Amino acid sequence: MPKVRVTRRLHFAAAHRLCNAAFDDAQNRAVFGACSNPNGHGHNYQLEVTVEGEVDPTTGFVLDVKRLRDLVSDLVIQDLDHANLNVDVGWLDGVNPTAENVAVRIWHRIDGHLEGARLVSVRLWETERNLVEYRGE
Amino acid sequence: MPKVRVTRRLHFAAAHRLCNAAFDDAQNRAVFGACSNPNGHGHNYQLEVTVEGEVDPTTGFVLDVKRLRDLVSDLVIQDLDHANLNVDVGWLDGVNPTAENVAVRIWHRIDGHLEGARLVSVRLWETERNLVEYRGE
Amino acid sequence: MPKVRVTRRLHFAAAHRLCNAAFDDAQNRAVFGACSNPNGHGHNYQLEVTVEGEVDPTTGFVLDVKRLRDLVSDLVIQDLDHANLNVDVGWLDGVNPTAENVAVRIWHRIDGHLEGARLVSVRLWETERNLVEYRGE
Amino acid sequence: MPKVRVTRRLHFAAAHRLCNAAFDDAQNRAVFGACSNPNGHGHNYQLEVTVEGEVDPTTGFVLDVKRLRDLVSDLVIQDLDHANLNVDVGWLDGVNPTAENVAVRIWHRIDGHLEGARLVSVRLWETERNLVEYRGE
Amino acid sequence: MPKVRVTRRLHFAAAHRLCNAAFDDAQNRAVFGACSNPNGHGHNYQLEVTVEGEVDPTTGFVLDVKRLRDLVSDLVIQDLDHANLNVDVGWLDGVNPTAENVAVRIWHRIDGHLEGARLVSVRLWETERNLVEYRGE
Amino acid sequence: MPKVRVTRRLHFAAAHRLCNAAFDDAQNRAVFGACSNPNGHGHNYQLEVTVEGEVDPTTGFVLDVKRLRDLVSDLVIQDLDHANLNVDVGWLDGVNPTAENVAVRIWHRIDGHLEGARLVSVRLWETERNLVEYRGE
Repeated sequence: MPKVRVTRRLHFAAAHRLCNAAFDDAQNRAVFGACSNPNGHGHNYQLEVTVEGEVDPTTGFVLDVKRLRDLVSDLVIQDLDHANLNVDVGWLDGVNPTAENVAVRIWHRIDGHLEGARLVSVRLWETERNLVEYRGE
Repeated sequence: MPKVRVTRRLHFAAAHRLCNAAFDDAQNRAVFGACSNPNGHGHNYQLEVTVEGEVDPTTGFVLDVKRLRDLVSDLVIQDLDHANLNVDVGWLDGVNPTAENVAVRIWHRIDGHLEGARLVSVRLWETERNLVEYRGE
Repeated sequence: MPKVRVTRRLHFAAAHRLCNAAFDDAQNRAVFGACSNPNGHGHNYQLEVTVEGEVDPTTGFVLDVKRLRDLVSDLVIQDLDHANLNVDVGWLDGVNPTAENVAVRIWHRIDGHLEGARLVSVRLWETERNLVEYRGE
Repeated sequence: MPKVRVTRRLHFAAAHRLCNAAFDDAQNRAVFGACSNPNGHGHNYQLEVTVEGEVDPTTGFVLDVKRLRDLVSDLVIQDLDHANLNVDVGWLDGVNPTAENVAVRIWHRIDGHLEGARLVSVRLWETERNLVEYRGE
Repeated sequence: MPKVRVTRRLHFAAAHRLCNAAFDDAQNRAVFGACSNPNGHGHNYQLEVTVEGEVDPTTGFVLDVKRLRDLVSDLVIQDLDHANLNVDVGWLDGVNPTAENVAVRIWHRIDGHLEGARLVSVRLWETERNLVEYRGE
Repeated sequence: MPKVRVTRRLHFAAAHRLCNAAFDDAQNRAVFGACSNPNGHGHNYQLEVTVEGEVDPTTGFVLDVKRLRDLVSDLVIQDLDHANLNVDVGWLDGVNPTAENVAVRIWHRIDGHLEGARLVSVRLWETERNLVEYRGE
């Protein structure tokens, strides 16, 4: 059967502040600029999760995209939406919530839970102009 | 000369938390739901400012859209971008930062500073699906 | 209190066929072209519902946009999503499901059910390039 | 019958240079900045034309949006697409091709040719962030 | 010469119903949910076709994107636009019209007809949030 | 450390005319159609630059996306924005400014200047429907 990639786009609204806990305020300001404002800022994040697999001849699906949506909602969106990424999310503990770090953690959060489909890519848009992608490498 | 409306779209990333200071936590949770999470959340706000005026026969402009951009950037975006709307912005003091309240305050922040063009509309997108508009009424 | 307009964007996927039951096939083809193909076609419709009201000083809302979303979902989207507009929707009976006719029927479906907010506009995008708006006139 | 507004979105790609023929180069540079670069620049313009009328009970249309598309294509897009707005378009002669001036000329180009529908608005996006609207006033 | 990828985005509006002809109604409802509503629903599909090849030093093109548009229009869009994917399209016969299956059939419909350019990817957006990609594997 | 791809989207507005200097007018018209209109046309180009690298454990960045933005702005956008690609840009001299050729030149303009991050892809949207990608091959 042909191998097809299926992508679901989801979104969440969250606050964050970029900082390295080992830095003092002046260092954080120097490295992260306005992104390190002490009271935080926020984004409407867009998340694209891509899986790959053979098309099931019975259903015509790789993985029902509604099922993919529900899996990612339960494992990721439910925790991140309307949250503060620095303090509210257990599986982001100890990480500076840059888009890079959040994308890598999302990958590990969902990998192995996709009902046989292979996780290919986690893409995270922080704004309409800024995108990171992690592919498990 | 014909009267034309000119709109500039700008954006800012900010954190906020919805709450009424006169409510206790349970009341805030009941009224505002996840939007009142104590540590806040955030958005990529899109702001559209519309002015109206006669076309200047010398320039062909109502108000140079780059000038409109700079005016709104200086008066609004500089204060709101990468800020926490509950605590960082003097001209939002004392207001629950719903999209409605922020739009009304933005109107009053820029009205009278638009070099002769008449302010017609302030539109604020909190997400791709939620929009408020204030027209000075 | 200031009067603000609040808009919620929702979407639904539906099939339809344009035809006038009083026409024969040749007439329908002449008037509606490919839109009258007997087996139908479909769209991802985008619906924008706008209400207006004074900002409640207690909440900072005109009408909580999540409440607006739920009202329109229950009254409109639940019936139209994944439906065939020609045959599946009781409140579209007897109407050729052009965007104009559907928008007018959506207006009457929700008007009076918006908890005190005044309905201002129903905008319906049939494609990214085709839009109709009904304002109750 | 209810009155509905119908909008068609079209686009064209064109070059232009902003300048006032009565100015010398230094004046044009002072007023128009990079927009007056002598060799021009260009845009993917998005044009939204809105008409209003009663819904025809026979068709369910105000004006078939495909007919609206064809009318605007023939009268406007055919002349502007892949053209230089300063030199290639007879009905823009003598006008500095700002978005404001182009929108006003488009209005007069199509008004009266819309088969009974009333022209309500011409909206012209020069970029994703800059919009002008002319409503015939 | 450098190898470049060229993508053309096209769209079509179509109806479909998801079902397995070997299933009874209850099974189809269990597997496909609302997507198996007997009277169908529909979408504005966005199709992205990507080809790769060396840049021709005479033209600066891999394959003129207008030519790519015309080829895909003739081979694919003409058949799918304003059609019902379950019954109107010969080259979809015998296939449950999931996005996965439609994308694979589109690939085979155009592969070998692209005037020397190598087909790299067929991407099909069923909604703004659901995407499948077939790369010939 | 995990390897992540970071993409920045930027835009510029420019004029161009497609032509081969070795062709006469009739040949240019035959090959390039309206794109070879002698007075040129233009676009709002969208440019996406993607780099890859390991996440720096101190900052959580591969390359600060604001730094990536500034590098590409200085090396590319400053020269292309509000310019005529046929005559105003030294590093495009001698090339027919098709999207393919411009993307390849942008690659060579920025490759090696990205502070240790590896350049992966240059994607250039000429319109919302036409995209080219160069990956250095």
